[in-house]
Amino acid sequence: MKAAVVPEKGSKWEIKEVDDPKPGVNQVLIRIHASGICYTDVHQTLGELPMQYPCILGHEPVGEIVAIGEGVTKRKVGDRVGVPWVQHECGRCEWCMRERNAFCPGRIGTSGQISGGHAELMVAYAEGTMLIPDGLSYEQAAPIFCAGYTVYSGLRIAEPKPHEKVAVVGIGGLGHLAVQYSRACGFDTIAITHSGDKKKLALELGADHVVADGAELEKLGGADVILATSNSCKQTLDAFKGLRNDGRLVVMGFFGEPLTFTAADLLFKRARIIGSIQNGTEMLYEALDFAARGKVKVMAETFALNDINKAYDKVAKGDVRFRAVVSNN
Amino acid sequence: MKAAVVPEKGSKWEIKEVDDPKPGVNQVLIRIHASGICYTDVHQTLGELPMQYPCILGHEPVGEIVAIGEGVTKRKVGDRVGVPWVQHECGRCEWCMRERNAFCPGRIGTSGQISGGHAELMVAYAEGTMLIPDGLSYEQAAPIFCAGYTVYSGLRIAEPKPHEKVAVVGIGGLGHLAVQYSRACGFDTIAITHSGDKKKLALELGADHVVADGAELEKLGGADVILATSNSCKQTLDAFKGLRNDGRLVVMGFFGEPLTFTAADLLFKRARIIGSIQNGTEMLYEALDFAARGKVKVMAETFALNDINKAYDKVAKGDVRFRAVVSNN
Amino acid sequence: MKAAVVPEKGSKWEIKEVDDPKPGVNQVLIRIHASGICYTDVHQTLGELPMQYPCILGHEPVGEIVAIGEGVTKRKVGDRVGVPWVQHECGRCEWCMRERNAFCPGRIGTSGQISGGHAELMVAYAEGTMLIPDGLSYEQAAPIFCAGYTVYSGLRIAEPKPHEKVAVVGIGGLGHLAVQYSRACGFDTIAITHSGDKKKLALELGADHVVADGAELEKLGGADVILATSNSCKQTLDAFKGLRNDGRLVVMGFFGEPLTFTAADLLFKRARIIGSIQNGTEMLYEALDFAARGKVKVMAETFALNDINKAYDKVAKGDVRFRAVVSNN
Amino acid sequence: MKAAVVPEKGSKWEIKEVDDPKPGVNQVLIRIHASGICYTDVHQTLGELPMQYPCILGHEPVGEIVAIGEGVTKRKVGDRVGVPWVQHECGRCEWCMRERNAFCPGRIGTSGQISGGHAELMVAYAEGTMLIPDGLSYEQAAPIFCAGYTVYSGLRIAEPKPHEKVAVVGIGGLGHLAVQYSRACGFDTIAITHSGDKKKLALELGADHVVADGAELEKLGGADVILATSNSCKQTLDAFKGLRNDGRLVVMGFFGEPLTFTAADLLFKRARIIGSIQNGTEMLYEALDFAARGKVKVMAETFALNDINKAYDKVAKGDVRFRAVVSNN
Repeated sequence: MKAAVVPEKGSKWEIKEVDDPKPGVNQVLIRIHASGICYTDVHQTLGELPMQYPCILGHEPVGEIVAIGEGVTKRKVGDRVGVPWVQHECGRCEWCMRERNAFCPGRIGTSGQISGGHAELMVAYAEGTMLIPDGLSYEQAAPIFCAGYTVYSGLRIAEPKPHEKVAVVGIGGLGHLAVQYSRACGFDTIAITHSGDKKKLALELGADHVVADGAELEKLGGADVILATSNSCKQTLDAFKGLRNDGRLVVMGFFGEPLTFTAADLLFKRARIIGSIQNGTEMLYEALDFAARGKVKVMAETFALNDINKAYDKVAKGDVRFRAVVSNN
Repeated sequence: MKAAVVPEKGSKWEIKEVDDPKPGVNQVLIRIHASGICYTDVHQTLGELPMQYPCILGHEPVGEIVAIGEGVTKRKVGDRVGVPWVQHECGRCEWCMRERNAFCPGRIGTSGQISGGHAELMVAYAEGTMLIPDGLSYEQAAPIFCAGYTVYSGLRIAEPKPHEKVAVVGIGGLGHLAVQYSRACGFDTIAITHSGDKKKLALELGADHVVADGAELEKLGGADVILATSNSCKQTLDAFKGLRNDGRLVVMGFFGEPLTFTAADLLFKRARIIGSIQNGTEMLYEALDFAARGKVKVMAETFALNDINKAYDKVAKGDVRFRAVVSNN
Repeated sequence: MKAAVVPEKGSKWEIKEVDDPKPGVNQVLIRIHASGICYTDVHQTLGELPMQYPCILGHEPVGEIVAIGEGVTKRKVGDRVGVPWVQHECGRCEWCMRERNAFCPGRIGTSGQISGGHAELMVAYAEGTMLIPDGLSYEQAAPIFCAGYTVYSGLRIAEPKPHEKVAVVGIGGLGHLAVQYSRACGFDTIAITHSGDKKKLALELGADHVVADGAELEKLGGADVILATSNSCKQTLDAFKGLRNDGRLVVMGFFGEPLTFTAADLLFKRARIIGSIQNGTEMLYEALDFAARGKVKVMAETFALNDINKAYDKVAKGDVRFRAVVSNN
Repeated sequence: MKAAVVPEKGSKWEIKEVDDPKPGVNQVLIRIHASGICYTDVHQTLGELPMQYPCILGHEPVGEIVAIGEGVTKRKVGDRVGVPWVQHECGRCEWCMRERNAFCPGRIGTSGQISGGHAELMVAYAEGTMLIPDGLSYEQAAPIFCAGYTVYSGLRIAEPKPHEKVAVVGIGGLGHLAVQYSRACGFDTIAITHSGDKKKLALELGADHVVADGAELEKLGGADVILATSNSCKQTLDAFKGLRNDGRLVVMGFFGEPLTFTAADLLFKRARIIGSIQNGTEMLYEALDFAARGKVKVMAETFALNDINKAYDKVAKGDVRFRAVVSNN
């Protein structure tokens, strides 16, 4: 098969022929139809996350099952599936018994401990695959498996209640989806962005208001929930000023610098800072369902597998609008 | 192997030699060390639940894995495990994707759609087995897999908060565990029983108070949570009179008659009636852990497999104190 | 002042001149601008609730403060206010210390223990008055103080989560508001009504779907929350069939007959039956705010105080569409 | 009356005769029986909080009502009461309408905007007084009105669930109560302290375990909730290392420096940082009830009003074990 291989740390990706993978016990073989590229691909390529090279990245893979390994009974050839980051866990530790596999020390992450989706074929553990709802295209589905899943998890973990207001910091790959999920769930939604260009976009995506920063947010009355999709620590802390009393700041991405809070920041507003990851397949199920019902639309640039380095470059520079998806269709 | 077989609806159980079962794909073979008997065994024997005969009952089985089938990677020979009611699900329906397998229409129930534990050997799906914590004996572990799991789930689903009071109606197989779980969790615990004999027992189990009925409960100040472990509809509704404002009545067993509430019953106290089943393996994990730490002790009469009909008769008559366990040790 | 007096149990109301009330300690005098009529007025007139006659009914009163009594510091002449059912409590019992005054045994209910709003003037405890947001007319505000407050409380007590579906049984005085609140909060909303006429209305109010009964609701996929605004026990229990797993049936009105549930009803779906009343002023604050922002519009027939018996007759016969409001403007 | 007056910023307190205060509208006059001293008294004396001098401090005052002002109907002469920090609010802002008066911009704080309890008499708003349960002595009650209320609020805001573990950082005035509240609520409780002396004390107070720091806490299995009662930023961040997955760090006091978290700290454990204050009178009601039932005992040194400077000095130096209470009995 053809695959985009990262030959070594920091190298350009190479499109080349490699052996077709074979599904092992409890695994399925997926013909990849689409595979999203995330800024995490950049971190992985540059060795900023623990990796072994050569490797095939891609943690937003979707496609059709074309073969199943021994022991697979819950997936079958022909199933349309996608695979999120965590695709396998030990099943024996406390966190597995508690059904919170994201904390399993032995978990296997797509594109981390097993090859990812930037290829024509990919092997995944059957248990880690998620059925894609009818009517949702592969290109739309792919970015839901990381970007959509992440922001919807972040929204839900904040336990927003009717009548609350949700603000989204950073209108990019994650943020443009966060605005839509918040609106799809009925919340008054405020986009926070400095860019005049993105201001227009945010309104088109359904944002009720757009503000430039935390001071403007505060002036508007503030937000009960702030979803920090920006990787700027400074922008996130600035937005925090507009958090309402009993508000929650949800952190779901990586910053270069640490976040710093005074006791007064936390106490006077009774504020909460919440770390969120991909919080269970129920979140993914719902995130996909909103997309399948057309309530959330991914804005993505599509690339052929042969052009994946163009996609990578745009992602690395932050130029992509707003997700990059490799399509094998 | 030797097994207790129900030859047909309503028949006496027969201890006889049958072929050893073989673990299929994704299944394990368990050498049964202990197997609890529940009043549900009586319902199943009498055909009050949908059953096919002949069958082997026993939905509180625990033992050691002695063989594994194809595809099993998360369990190994030598593992000490038990199996709750739901041991397998389809993995494809909405409820499976939501990680609430109790609602999967295709779920397989231990002793229902697959043979149970009143035997020397039993086959179960690996995914449905739960590791038993070190130091917890098989005899103590078995009743946690249904009775303990059920009452602890009922307590937890009520979301009791610090400072709240918990009452337990019915001090029998479920109730004697419910009292202990409530105490282990730190709640002021009130046992409701008419029997002078059980009053003494409830205090020994740690109950802070014992009352005869709902009127006495109300006089004492009431309870925020009432765990209805009795199968008497009348006794349950009587206890409901002692529910405090914003209180929750948790129903976790089967009654002959329906429960009847007036709007006034519900509105003036802002009461909640909650149906509870076995609410996820996290509940089972914690229920076992409390037992392993000695905070909860099952009071059970133990029988040899050959004497299982004695056990059955005592359970059927309600004479057992308080659970019956078949021990192969 | 002119007032609608109920001279004795079961009598027609009389419009007559009575002495102007004077605000006592901690009380305010309100010039009534609008006063809603509820089916509870009928129960009170017919003596189906504990009452003393003669009396002045009206528990959805709104108007302007024209005088304040001794000790009043938080309200002032000119304030636009309304008064919900509970307007005063003892301040000394457990429930008052817990800030849940709806349970205070010494609470004073508007039109129950103190004269209501079907008059030109009314006295109320200052602490029980709620400021009306700017821009919300008195006629729109009045029905929020009972009908709107009740249904919004019922929706909120069910703790609906994003992606859940809400069904409303009964599209009348309460139900037409429940549909709108559910939509304003972003939930997929299903109206349940047999009437073709009301089907059309429900869609105009924003319902996403209309079904005739519980069977149709189930066919549609069911609802996670069912708001029972109908006073028909039969219709409510029929709708219950369409409750989804982990669903909640919220009871917020009075039925002639009791509600009856089998254990199977409750257990297999892990269902919850929740009694809801007017659940705290935060709910009222938000209910008014939705109305002030135009997200919820009361459909009401307006009557002059002199015509109040016409209004009463329509309410008593169930002919009013959908609330009746006496307007003194 | 005799009172401890702070003549100006940074001055020694002076015991002197001042005019008896008179209760104004909606106020009561309290004969002070006991008045706790808190480290906040030091901040106030040194001008580290906005203050006007001369002033009388003391925000843990308890005593008997000896006179009531105009408009007071819910308190009477002879009532045993205490007064927490927030004793009055505007009643008109959003936060008052939401029943979260801690956020009212116009709130009046005991010893801040109105004289406190280090005196023989004190005036307070009736609405801000809390009845003291029978059988709880004034000396025991006083420190519950700030220290006890604060830590119990912190425990409750973390929403600890049965089976969770609670750790307390800092075994001083707040911490020694936090350990006891956590135990009274049934949680496995871990005290974190370097001091061998306090280790012994923590065990006497009921702690299940004592560890020296976060590393030891982690080794022990960690805690689901960490109550940060220490005012050392360093010690708090060190303890954070022992937070379990899905754990919550509750911040309830003031630090000199800011708290700093990396995204990894928050994300990998899905951690939450929660700011907590005194979270509503329900918390105070329960905190007092635990003390009245003997489940929580304040360890305090008692001083006569004339000796209040001795008390102040010990508090300022951190030498007091563990609260200082001025007793007028």
